[in-house]
Amino acid sequence: MSALWKKYNELLTTALNDVDLNRQPENLYQPISYTLSLGGKRIRPTLCLLASDLFGADISGIIPAALGLEIFHNFTLVHDDIMDEAPLRRGKATVHEKWNKDTAILSGDVMLVKAYEQFIKCEPSKLSSLLQLFNETAIGVCEGQQLDMNFESEQNVSLSSYLYMIELKTAILLACCLKMGAILADADESDANLIYTFGKNIGIAFQIQDDYLDAYGDVEKFGKKPGGDILNNKKTFLLLTAYDKANKQQYQQLKILSDTTQNDDEKIKQTLALFDELEVRKLCQLAMDDYYQKAMTAIQEIKVEEHKKQALIQLANDLMKRAN
Amino acid sequence: MSALWKKYNELLTTALNDVDLNRQPENLYQPISYTLSLGGKRIRPTLCLLASDLFGADISGIIPAALGLEIFHNFTLVHDDIMDEAPLRRGKATVHEKWNKDTAILSGDVMLVKAYEQFIKCEPSKLSSLLQLFNETAIGVCEGQQLDMNFESEQNVSLSSYLYMIELKTAILLACCLKMGAILADADESDANLIYTFGKNIGIAFQIQDDYLDAYGDVEKFGKKPGGDILNNKKTFLLLTAYDKANKQQYQQLKILSDTTQNDDEKIKQTLALFDELEVRKLCQLAMDDYYQKAMTAIQEIKVEEHKKQALIQLANDLMKRAN
Repeated sequence: MSALWKKYNELLTTALNDVDLNRQPENLYQPISYTLSLGGKRIRPTLCLLASDLFGADISGIIPAALGLEIFHNFTLVHDDIMDEAPLRRGKATVHEKWNKDTAILSGDVMLVKAYEQFIKCEPSKLSSLLQLFNETAIGVCEGQQLDMNFESEQNVSLSSYLYMIELKTAILLACCLKMGAILADADESDANLIYTFGKNIGIAFQIQDDYLDAYGDVEKFGKKPGGDILNNKKTFLLLTAYDKANKQQYQQLKILSDTTQNDDEKIKQTLALFDELEVRKLCQLAMDDYYQKAMTAIQEIKVEEHKKQALIQLANDLMKRAN
Repeated sequence: MSALWKKYNELLTTALNDVDLNRQPENLYQPISYTLSLGGKRIRPTLCLLASDLFGADISGIIPAALGLEIFHNFTLVHDDIMDEAPLRRGKATVHEKWNKDTAILSGDVMLVKAYEQFIKCEPSKLSSLLQLFNETAIGVCEGQQLDMNFESEQNVSLSSYLYMIELKTAILLACCLKMGAILADADESDANLIYTFGKNIGIAFQIQDDYLDAYGDVEKFGKKPGGDILNNKKTFLLLTAYDKANKQQYQQLKILSDTTQNDDEKIKQTLALFDELEVRKLCQLAMDDYYQKAMTAIQEIKVEEHKKQALIQLANDLMKRAN
């Protein structure tokens, strides 16, 4: 995390603490405070602040929009965790585990409205365009979550469907955060669209990297044993690339592996061996690079002095674990 | 239903059918179309249109706000039905029954955003004040639902807590619908607040009536056997009034009845007998009358010719099953 990112992180955490959640009924509001206090990297609001900074705005006027985006993101986590039956979030019990499903639904609903409460603090003349962008994004994120759930039970998911799903579920929110910052800083439309493109492509690259690290990540840096997605038969970029490239025999082997009940290490080992045969790792790196380069091309085209773009490029590189 | 109400109902149904829900993934959007097509009296958007009409606006410009309110109301039904484990809504399977809980959560979320999609079609200069009102209302409605759920497991619910709960859960949305119509029609602030007061009080009266009819409703008109709330030990205005008025012995009798496993008819009969002793029926009618009168006082004070108020008074009377 760069010094600027850290600074914004602290600023946002303070501002989040100031959101009035000391209300009744307690069991509706406590889950919200709890969720917002779990921390996290605050990537989305930071992107919003960095974008507005890039176009010369004073970030103090952007804080409400940034908070709205962070609250929205946390709303999606609370509801997604119910659907995914996730017991833990950031190492702590999820809301539906700590309280119950009903409370998680309802507290999540309040959080979604609370996001809008922040947005309407923005300059009234920009509210329509901000909310149009946000509404489209929010609906897209829900579509992405539904697609993700649908994929679990679908036999044949194409690589392009998968990319579309991660674009919706993850990438467009990052893009929206940046574009909101740009709109609030009075950036012209083409620059606002370029920063959206930058964010969308970084988002896709980041999500592919997530799949990549699950299989090839360094245990020490990654903090967990690799291969979790393989064991869960998760349709990742890696597995779908493998299916895409496999000949009939390799396809059968992948299918057999996914049905196997053999011991964990063997399943991971054999799947990774097939991935090697099919050059999945290289193809995955190429895809990440490709989206990363698209992002860099977009940010280069923005009509702002290069040195001002460094903070955003740095954050993208941090996310992509790249050396600057 | 008056002729005007019927006309608006048709207008709103047509407009709802024009909301684009023919999107992917199908299993996210079909539950939304399904919910919106279940019909209902469209009371909330009709109130919005009638209020704007009262202050001389052309209702065609108000349709999006009215739709947003109806979509929001339906969102609350979808999520509430999950929490209440309701199998039926308007005689048809609820979304979580017909699809599943995850889809009901996510389709509901999309509906909430779709409500905002409608609101941002309103005149930009009014967007801030409209959304401020709406956000407060939406959060209040969620608080009301949480209180309602909390009451189920609470031993002692006071009559005033109950009234506050129905105000939040039901009445403030009706009030918000009217005030939104007033704001969009450029009504002055005091008139906008008066119509809010009118709506809030009619809402409370209506909700008390709901409790009243469950015990004292005419089987033929009401369409179901009275006493359902008594059998379910539901904390209604009637039961809480009874507890409020009961002496020690009557209090014990009510407690015993609520714990009883005796046959249904006997439980209803004995509870109603206690209600009679405690004049619960009369107290309930007085409360309804009181809120109804408060509503009428508020609408009388609105600075608009009396004859223009008749459509709204008529709708209120229809809701309260009063002769005009």
